[in-house]
Amino acid sequence: MEQMALKQTIEQLQKRYDEFKNQKLNLDMSRGKPCPEQLKLSMDMLKILNKEEDYICDGIDTRNYGVLEGIKPARKLFAELLEVSENEVIVGGNSSLNMMHDAIARAFIFGVPGGKAPWGVLPKVRFLCPSPGYDRHFAICEAFGIEMIPVEMKQDGPDMDEIERIVSSDESVKGIWCVPKYSNPDGISYSDDVVRRFANLKPKAPDFRIFWDNAYVVHHLSDEHDEILNILEECKKAGNPDMVYIFASTSKITFPGAGIAAMAASETNIKYTLQKMAVQTICPDKTNQLRHVRFLKSVENINELMKKHAAIIAPKFAAVLETLERELGGKEIAWWNKPRGGYFISLYTLDGCAKEVVAMAAEAGVKLTNAGATYPYGRDPRDRNIRIAPTYPAIEDLKKAIEILCVCVQLVSAKKMLSGEVLSRKVV
Amino acid sequence: MEQMALKQTIEQLQKRYDEFKNQKLNLDMSRGKPCPEQLKLSMDMLKILNKEEDYICDGIDTRNYGVLEGIKPARKLFAELLEVSENEVIVGGNSSLNMMHDAIARAFIFGVPGGKAPWGVLPKVRFLCPSPGYDRHFAICEAFGIEMIPVEMKQDGPDMDEIERIVSSDESVKGIWCVPKYSNPDGISYSDDVVRRFANLKPKAPDFRIFWDNAYVVHHLSDEHDEILNILEECKKAGNPDMVYIFASTSKITFPGAGIAAMAASETNIKYTLQKMAVQTICPDKTNQLRHVRFLKSVENINELMKKHAAIIAPKFAAVLETLERELGGKEIAWWNKPRGGYFISLYTLDGCAKEVVAMAAEAGVKLTNAGATYPYGRDPRDRNIRIAPTYPAIEDLKKAIEILCVCVQLVSAKKMLSGEVLSRKVV
Repeated sequence: MEQMALKQTIEQLQKRYDEFKNQKLNLDMSRGKPCPEQLKLSMDMLKILNKEEDYICDGIDTRNYGVLEGIKPARKLFAELLEVSENEVIVGGNSSLNMMHDAIARAFIFGVPGGKAPWGVLPKVRFLCPSPGYDRHFAICEAFGIEMIPVEMKQDGPDMDEIERIVSSDESVKGIWCVPKYSNPDGISYSDDVVRRFANLKPKAPDFRIFWDNAYVVHHLSDEHDEILNILEECKKAGNPDMVYIFASTSKITFPGAGIAAMAASETNIKYTLQKMAVQTICPDKTNQLRHVRFLKSVENINELMKKHAAIIAPKFAAVLETLERELGGKEIAWWNKPRGGYFISLYTLDGCAKEVVAMAAEAGVKLTNAGATYPYGRDPRDRNIRIAPTYPAIEDLKKAIEILCVCVQLVSAKKMLSGEVLSRKVV
Repeated sequence: MEQMALKQTIEQLQKRYDEFKNQKLNLDMSRGKPCPEQLKLSMDMLKILNKEEDYICDGIDTRNYGVLEGIKPARKLFAELLEVSENEVIVGGNSSLNMMHDAIARAFIFGVPGGKAPWGVLPKVRFLCPSPGYDRHFAICEAFGIEMIPVEMKQDGPDMDEIERIVSSDESVKGIWCVPKYSNPDGISYSDDVVRRFANLKPKAPDFRIFWDNAYVVHHLSDEHDEILNILEECKKAGNPDMVYIFASTSKITFPGAGIAAMAASETNIKYTLQKMAVQTICPDKTNQLRHVRFLKSVENINELMKKHAAIIAPKFAAVLETLERELGGKEIAWWNKPRGGYFISLYTLDGCAKEVVAMAAEAGVKLTNAGATYPYGRDPRDRNIRIAPTYPAIEDLKKAIEILCVCVQLVSAKKMLSGEVLSRKVV
């Protein structure tokens, strides 16, 4: 009986799939990329500096050389945003990823304050990687030959028992990647307990660093905001002031390719970093920093701007969630998060289905992030996580794309159930 | 007789010096920094992109993510400027120094195509440093622990006999710094013979690289331009296509802190570099690249703009040269170059006088580049080179500053001659 029903379901789904495929669609949901309407919100920023005197800030000509650490008001703005002091911030160019990469590059070449040697001369360097996580973090590790140790994500952050155990016992573990707020891709925000446990880690390696990528610090989707504890403050309280590097940028506040990025850390870390940066460059593009400061003004004003972003993208998230619910709800073949912020919806299929689903969707013209990309080395051990990036496509395209994705999920699940390869939870 | 005359001279000079000192001046000639009038020349660039559609280039929204290698028309413009092909160029952010630093960082962490190991794991890495040269090149070497080997500069470029000898025999020699056109600080342009000998080097190290910092590629001071041979083309002819990295920027064409920079090299090198850069960042600030392309348009147009720069700074160079000639001419206690381009005038005192001259000038309120800074490790073996950067100060300030400098040169020389420590060439 059940077999017959499954075969019939597969037939119907295959028909729907083929119809979509014939439409020769070309929809891209692979990256967390703001849409054109979002970029429109910051166009006034590009009109704010006009006359020569507009480019002078605190007596400094932002067009000329100098001010390695970033202009004062830009440091002040990020200090407010990240709840640290002005001297604990470096404002750089357009990419926080670049600042993260370079922090690791410096560690490899020169070492880290408190460490015994540059990481590059050590036989083994390991990083903890809460997974699923941000693929570009993992790509940096892979490029540097850093061995990645996956750590499970729970509903309130990564598995802290596991992290405490490994960090305190293995000196080759030099760092951990965190997206503490509206995490990529799960949309999870770390609980106070998790943040405190991070701050109170007792690493075996004196040069262990938490890479705290606060990418979505103000990226709420509704009026209900997640808030996380101030990691630097907690680290100071715990006597670990130098253990964390914090990163953020305006890439998803103003312009993805033309925003400004910042790194925050203890003054010891900042001083060391600037000393090394002084041989790397003369200064960041201060004109763009000044544009940002004049336009964004304050954290309060940024929050107002983020509401406008939410007004554009929250309906897209809602559309995805509605479609998922309509197509997959109650079928016990897929589960997904309902994030209150960030850029992603994380979809979990039955074990062993994600790769095939993503491949089928691609064949029907829907490009998703590669299955596995959210895990170290691109290997999702259960092959079940699919990252959905709803922000860029137009809402009608998005609905169609998610419908196709859902058809693929159902089709792959049904086929695998038919073959006995997987069981739905309901069946279990 | 001679002693008496010297004492009298010293007395007169000391009086002049004291008078200047009492004026409590504050003049800075330490860095090659464009002046406000030069920045004015590019103000229209900042008004060129206004409407949303202005930011679209070849169908790409420059405000959004993507295009790691730089936008096509920016690559094309630098390709023309550096006489290479579009695929041999990466256009980056605001700093060519950053691109040079990162090229070395990549070599340390990942190695260089053709090499056997990352430089970071080698017991010793050496660089040749034609001297006097650019202090920031030397600072990178010092930070990375690269042992610097000074090479003498001659009138047509560095001592090629010495370079050929060392490069072909020492595998730990991995690179050389060159400013081939209007060199920093001597203003020397490499002869065709020198460029060809560079291209035909037979390095013992398969991962040897020439760092060709073409910082002053269009920075002529008059209609008489120095031109140098195309190094990449010569390297290809010599069967060494991968041996050179070329760098340039618009820092002294548009804005020092808000220009765009580029790296050029063989496609093999470019491909390798982009592969590593792909984990470092998502893209450079493409909006600033587009602004530059729309404003600068073509090499021809850049040359017109550079004539306007020359109209502002050539009189400053002339004022320095006139003052040097008036105060020091024929006295055989100092010699200087008369550059046809670039940003510096290089002054040579009698041996052993430079440090004291620079210190005395500083005491009288004239800040010069530290004596020795133009040599590896800040050590000028003959303590005689002083780098003069005439572009930033107003012309009246500049004249006064150089007059003070000349008084210091005379005073220090006379004192040392009196004590028998030095002899003027005339005396010799």
